[in-house]
Amino acid sequence: MQYLGENRLSAGKYIEGLLASDTVILSKALSLIESQLNTDQDLSLKVLEGILPSTGQSMRVGITGVPGVGKSTFIESIGLYLVDKGHKVAVLTVDPSSQRTKGSILGDKTRMEQLSKSSNAFIRPSAAGKSVGGVAHHTRESILLCEAAGYDVVLVETIGVGQTETLVRDMVDFFLLLMIAGAGDELQGIKKGIIEMADALAITKADGENLKQAKQAQAVYKNALHLLTPANSLWVPPVLTCSAKNNEGIDEIWTSIQSYSDLMNNSGYLEMLRREQRLKWMQECIRLSIDSHLEQKQDNSNKFNHLSKAVKEGKLLPQKAAAVILEELLK
Amino acid sequence: MQYLGENRLSAGKYIEGLLASDTVILSKALSLIESQLNTDQDLSLKVLEGILPSTGQSMRVGITGVPGVGKSTFIESIGLYLVDKGHKVAVLTVDPSSQRTKGSILGDKTRMEQLSKSSNAFIRPSAAGKSVGGVAHHTRESILLCEAAGYDVVLVETIGVGQTETLVRDMVDFFLLLMIAGAGDELQGIKKGIIEMADALAITKADGENLKQAKQAQAVYKNALHLLTPANSLWVPPVLTCSAKNNEGIDEIWTSIQSYSDLMNNSGYLEMLRREQRLKWMQECIRLSIDSHLEQKQDNSNKFNHLSKAVKEGKLLPQKAAAVILEELLK
Repeated sequence: MQYLGENRLSAGKYIEGLLASDTVILSKALSLIESQLNTDQDLSLKVLEGILPSTGQSMRVGITGVPGVGKSTFIESIGLYLVDKGHKVAVLTVDPSSQRTKGSILGDKTRMEQLSKSSNAFIRPSAAGKSVGGVAHHTRESILLCEAAGYDVVLVETIGVGQTETLVRDMVDFFLLLMIAGAGDELQGIKKGIIEMADALAITKADGENLKQAKQAQAVYKNALHLLTPANSLWVPPVLTCSAKNNEGIDEIWTSIQSYSDLMNNSGYLEMLRREQRLKWMQECIRLSIDSHLEQKQDNSNKFNHLSKAVKEGKLLPQKAAAVILEELLK
Repeated sequence: MQYLGENRLSAGKYIEGLLASDTVILSKALSLIESQLNTDQDLSLKVLEGILPSTGQSMRVGITGVPGVGKSTFIESIGLYLVDKGHKVAVLTVDPSSQRTKGSILGDKTRMEQLSKSSNAFIRPSAAGKSVGGVAHHTRESILLCEAAGYDVVLVETIGVGQTETLVRDMVDFFLLLMIAGAGDELQGIKKGIIEMADALAITKADGENLKQAKQAQAVYKNALHLLTPANSLWVPPVLTCSAKNNEGIDEIWTSIQSYSDLMNNSGYLEMLRREQRLKWMQECIRLSIDSHLEQKQDNSNKFNHLSKAVKEGKLLPQKAAAVILEELLK
């Protein structure tokens, strides 16, 4: 069949491989869904449709925190802990921040070296994409692929500027905010919109000389959380401390995630949350499609060009032009 | 006429009042554009159309920085400095972060007390709105109203989580990033996406015991900026220091903004930037309209409900449902 490029398999082969937990196929499927080619997109939809019934059984955990908080170290630590307990762990990262220059300002560090050696862990760096929304879209699809391949814990790490937190919150069951003590608490603590989204806070690097400060920060955040309306009325986000270096506190954090999961499963809240997330995703798909539809129009329509020109020159209100374009676009 | 509520004026009255720099009318017009009522939206479009030729002459400056960096103090300081130099200064804030609980975690502090007393300064808190995009939309309209009312410097302050920086960058000529020294530089410095957007960095609180640290941070950021691709090839973002408390460095910052403005005006870059921004705004308007269009559909269409239900239950891929809905929606 024409649309199968040299490196592409048939939809059936992808599905078969994923359900057989074949990590080589998983890698290939992840590359497939990131492709911008129309034929690849058709193929990935077929694959996703085929695996859909085998998805949803993992615990999806989002992990965020400012750069410097030790996200990679923490994820390696909890990843190894989970693998040790018999879990299969997938780690995905969402990083749309470096769209202009690519790469990290600090240079590429070797991340999660130990975890990446485990046969029960799968680490995948961020999907590339033109837009933040596009990157998030691919991450959602990646979660499904990992679940089909038998990973029962999916850790989604946010990297980059603030908008990713909201996007990741919308694709996970549990959202963990990592904080660091003594680095100017007011600088991170009052990222209020993010604290409100968190299901738990963990103060990292709670060891050695930092321990006292970490405990103090814990108390401060516990107090601060009292001032906020919790994301849901059944769960009060705990404030924990941990040291990835000393392997301390990791088990408490996982126990906390487990308690949440039990409570939310039994109450039906988790299913409700996921239903909402799926609906949001659909709306996001519509938005992405409309964007690319508009881009095409922009290239091919005289009227569109005429309106755009007037808007650019400041002669026509953007709102007015938008109304005319929409009238054309919508039935 | 029916659509003029008790508190609404005619479009002509708003336009007249704005062009006469009437601040009472400006306040009323700002409330009008924030209204969600259809009749109010028609009216505000008329007002905006009427004033459009009298807009665009201000220097639009975005100011960002993490909470704790001293944004309010800085804005008060530079605002008073500008008023003193004969400018008329409008201050707008974009704060979509507290959508859930409203208000600030720290409680409402009295902000910019001195500046608010000046007859040549106009301070307007954030527009409310259902979405981040909606809030940004209102801020863009607010800038136009302030310009029509004769304000020649518009300062747009970002508050809240990260996504606002990108939105504000897209509505201003100059984007100033405030940084604080000695608060864990790595925590703020590597918000790389934001540093890349900045036209200048200023280290705040460079006074007393902090001075040495501020100068050190200045050197570090100067180095860091060398690693980045500048936003435009004509301008190398300077790294400055200032103390709002001691009124030091404020003039250097304004001089820098002025130099940028001269350079960018002469090169035609500023006009090019604004043209791009207007086009983006139009696309944003289209997106907002489609969102509300979809919301209506969602309420009124059986097919839409049917598809949504299948998506929510995880039985249908969001991408598939989106394609069907779009086919219905688009010609």
